[in-house]
Amino acid sequence: MSVMKLEEYRQHIRAQLDSVTDFWLKHSHDTDHGGFFSCIGRDGQVYDDMKYVWLQGRQVWMYCRLYRTLERFHRPEILQAAQAGGRFLRQFARVSDGSGGGNRWKCAFCLTRDGKAVKVQRTIFSECFYVMAMDELSRVTDDKDLQLEAEQMMEQPGLPGDVPTSSMAVPMMLLCLVVDKYRELASWCVQQILQHVQRNGTAVLENVSVDGAELPGCAGRLQNPGHALEAGWFLLQYSEQFGDPQIKKTAVDKFVKLPYQRGWDKENGGLFYFLDVDGHCPTQLEWSMKLWWPHCEALIAFLMAFSQTGESELLETFSQIYDYTFKHFPDTRSGEWFGYLTREGNVALDFKGGPFKGFFHVPRCLYMCERILDGLLAHRD
Amino acid sequence: MSVMKLEEYRQHIRAQLDSVTDFWLKHSHDTDHGGFFSCIGRDGQVYDDMKYVWLQGRQVWMYCRLYRTLERFHRPEILQAAQAGGRFLRQFARVSDGSGGGNRWKCAFCLTRDGKAVKVQRTIFSECFYVMAMDELSRVTDDKDLQLEAEQMMEQPGLPGDVPTSSMAVPMMLLCLVVDKYRELASWCVQQILQHVQRNGTAVLENVSVDGAELPGCAGRLQNPGHALEAGWFLLQYSEQFGDPQIKKTAVDKFVKLPYQRGWDKENGGLFYFLDVDGHCPTQLEWSMKLWWPHCEALIAFLMAFSQTGESELLETFSQIYDYTFKHFPDTRSGEWFGYLTREGNVALDFKGGPFKGFFHVPRCLYMCERILDGLLAHRD
Repeated sequence: MSVMKLEEYRQHIRAQLDSVTDFWLKHSHDTDHGGFFSCIGRDGQVYDDMKYVWLQGRQVWMYCRLYRTLERFHRPEILQAAQAGGRFLRQFARVSDGSGGGNRWKCAFCLTRDGKAVKVQRTIFSECFYVMAMDELSRVTDDKDLQLEAEQMMEQPGLPGDVPTSSMAVPMMLLCLVVDKYRELASWCVQQILQHVQRNGTAVLENVSVDGAELPGCAGRLQNPGHALEAGWFLLQYSEQFGDPQIKKTAVDKFVKLPYQRGWDKENGGLFYFLDVDGHCPTQLEWSMKLWWPHCEALIAFLMAFSQTGESELLETFSQIYDYTFKHFPDTRSGEWFGYLTREGNVALDFKGGPFKGFFHVPRCLYMCERILDGLLAHRD
Repeated sequence: MSVMKLEEYRQHIRAQLDSVTDFWLKHSHDTDHGGFFSCIGRDGQVYDDMKYVWLQGRQVWMYCRLYRTLERFHRPEILQAAQAGGRFLRQFARVSDGSGGGNRWKCAFCLTRDGKAVKVQRTIFSECFYVMAMDELSRVTDDKDLQLEAEQMMEQPGLPGDVPTSSMAVPMMLLCLVVDKYRELASWCVQQILQHVQRNGTAVLENVSVDGAELPGCAGRLQNPGHALEAGWFLLQYSEQFGDPQIKKTAVDKFVKLPYQRGWDKENGGLFYFLDVDGHCPTQLEWSMKLWWPHCEALIAFLMAFSQTGESELLETFSQIYDYTFKHFPDTRSGEWFGYLTREGNVALDFKGGPFKGFFHVPRCLYMCERILDGLLAHRD
């Protein structure tokens, strides 16, 4: 593939990142109560004013990351938006644990517009996105208190200890949080993720037993190709940071190539959301839908794998996913991306933001791909 | 519409009920551990041996009802199957409440093949289906202990008192349980259901506040046409039993005609699963899918409404739903019905039994329609 083609990708990805960021800057800020609206309709209208804590935290994180690392986003309005989001989270997202036990706390899952907790989940994800936001915010503001708060949160007794280890989501989430600071915990996360390679290395299964064996029934046979691909680029980052060639090889073979081979819809294109490893019909009603985020993760995974290995096959697959993604997901009328397509690739839900779609997967993908392409093109110049 | 047409419907519905019942008698019985397999693939194979308590209870109830009220199902194998299911439930489904409080208990949501509880939900539905099963079983076996057990369960302190009243599901479930015995509670359920008529009588909303006002946001605007139609025929039964013409009129206008007008897909046919009353895109990924059970409830609702009012328009709509349903859901290859179609009417999930689909909605629909047609044809002969 020519340098010109890579340059063309970079131009398009840069323009997409600019326009997606503008969409959220314009439509999602609640200037009355602080924080961000999560539920944004196709043309930017707020169709529900509930605020989802995952998405608040992710949006703060993403604004900070853009502000801190890309020159053209180093603008006061982006810093102010991140700080306003951070204030809203610190003021309203934390709720007391309820189970006694001193100074432990939980984060709500969603809040009313003015910050009243509506729902608290038992999982740790809200807390993790809160910490990610505070950690990144402390870097751009150089606020030592925030840094300390994020660290104390990480060291709450029982937080990583209590978690069920059967789902790949937990070690992936923790790996995101700790990779820079807690080498030992990061290594534990990596080992947990690797346990999901099953069936003699022919499949990545979403749920395994605590000791790394296949679970019975549908839950045990479940594959989530987008999630495996996301794990793939997490592992690639880890192996790059700590210089571990064995993990790099496993990441490329088992967490990049394999989920694509199993998850790509050869008839209609696009990645399935869920699959059963034995070919049974999954019981999830949405199994055959094409969601935006697995395609985001696939783009990052293949481009990063190519940049680390130079294998041209990886770049060819990146191109195929790129073509499908940019043909189907971006909305040429109002900007941003649709999130949910049918198996055939038609828009099934037309909102831009919802309970699980915010300013996160799309800009993170565009941002990561732009940075990787910067690196590739710098070497080739 | 001619008597011949009604007779044709009855013949087809009878044949369907026979064949669907045979499918479950043949494929779902666990002769080793008792109880019924819930997860049955397209051709009858068990693809997961988890046992869902809702479905166990519903299958016992359905076998008993068929055995007790239709001559051709008054067969020893059906009684034995119901009794075996009842034994499995009594032995394994009950788990202690955990919250202290004397002799209170909960039902698990699902069990392993040999009866170990896997998951317990906070809602009361598992308990309700348990009681429905025991109540119906006590009628066919004349077992006074079972009857007593079902009644004690109903009288557990706080059970109907504790429930959130904002979802239409709870009063509907309780109305099913109590209509014969607890007139006062039944009347409370009916009033709760009627609170869901909103927007000056132009819509039935799935969730309302405790005092019957519209809730904010997506949750408040949610419509579930199949659920409203099910409520419709519950209300029609209630009004018939207690001779309440006002409730009958409300049932026909608001819970039968209205959900059909709002919920029918004019382009592709079939009933949508969820809709937003203001026309926003629902956030449920499966909102536009065509599920088997709303069509089952619609068939019962329209046929019962016609039989109570004689309005020919109701029978015409019944015919339209009938044509869509029998064209799309039954599987001519292996029997029984598909449960989940795409918006366009193609099969999206091809299993016959899953966590929420068992021997219940299809046979209950066929059974109810057969009985109503028996009544209609008896009068016309």
